[in-house]
Amino acid sequence: MSEGSLEGLIDALRRLPGVGVKSAQRMAYHLLQHDRTGAERLALALQHAVSHVHHCERCHTFSEARVCATCLDPQRDARQLLVVESPADQAALERSGSYRGLYFVLMGRLSPLDGIGPADIGVHPLLDRASDGVVQEVILATGFSAEGEATAHVLAAALKARGLSVTRLARGVPVGSELEYVDLSTLAHALHDRR
Amino acid sequence: MSEGSLEGLIDALRRLPGVGVKSAQRMAYHLLQHDRTGAERLALALQHAVSHVHHCERCHTFSEARVCATCLDPQRDARQLLVVESPADQAALERSGSYRGLYFVLMGRLSPLDGIGPADIGVHPLLDRASDGVVQEVILATGFSAEGEATAHVLAAALKARGLSVTRLARGVPVGSELEYVDLSTLAHALHDRR
Repeated sequence: MSEGSLEGLIDALRRLPGVGVKSAQRMAYHLLQHDRTGAERLALALQHAVSHVHHCERCHTFSEARVCATCLDPQRDARQLLVVESPADQAALERSGSYRGLYFVLMGRLSPLDGIGPADIGVHPLLDRASDGVVQEVILATGFSAEGEATAHVLAAALKARGLSVTRLARGVPVGSELEYVDLSTLAHALHDRR
Repeated sequence: MSEGSLEGLIDALRRLPGVGVKSAQRMAYHLLQHDRTGAERLALALQHAVSHVHHCERCHTFSEARVCATCLDPQRDARQLLVVESPADQAALERSGSYRGLYFVLMGRLSPLDGIGPADIGVHPLLDRASDGVVQEVILATGFSAEGEATAHVLAAALKARGLSVTRLARGVPVGSELEYVDLSTLAHALHDRR
């Protein structure tokens, strides 16, 4: 067995989310045995990202520029501001091709059990951003998990207190679903919000 | 969305075994949002391991020295040589505390479908190692998967042709098992190899 460097690598890999000691070992062995180029490339990519990727001043998503390309895009409708939990959610909405307004990325969601409160997810920056006089509608697109719903609830109250118009993504039956396999809570919402 | 560095990091993370695009995104976002120290530490650990970890000249396991500590240990019985597929398997046997001989780590197993033949898993170095005049017994401890069995079969033939004594780990019922839940093939082996 090796001493030091290999154990250090396994420890460092374990800090990745979803990686336990077995996966970290497998990753370390794989990189050292079959993909040393990949290991070097990953090291450089990590260092480059840590030193270059910051947060967009306006929407808080990851960006190398002070203000991200989306926020600077003059083609987008600055009257709509859509609030998501993460850049991944933002990317999913962009792929849907059905939204042309601007974004605000919370970079988290309320989770009192994990000690994540309103300050940690940038509620005040959102209120400032939404009060720029241009934004007319704030669309809350946090997840429909318990934490996502709680986050939307807190944000809606704070935004409405500032006199802003707030909407929430529709709940309902997913496209392509058979009704008999849809959970009861979703069916109840779909029935209530029928149109 | 960011441009460049973030995508580069996600691409580099995808080269890790078992990591798809969703996990790579989650890892990248997690590191940049919550654990930049961890990202820097991982980068250094990767570079350090790539430049310091090589293979032991005698047993082929990962080692920072030319010959690993296990091979140099005078307390170990040099008459026994146990052949495993990977350092993880070696570590598992060490934890069992029931083996005091030396090791040879194949760093792989025969897998013709993946183009991995005898040369790729160091059959010749193993034959040279086992023919040092000191080794009296070669214990084949490759896995009991189809590839592991095939590897053991090929190695046994080559080692016996050199007049070496070859044994294989016992197959049988795992400790703590209820017989009714043990698969039929294992039961058949356990019955055949009864003692």
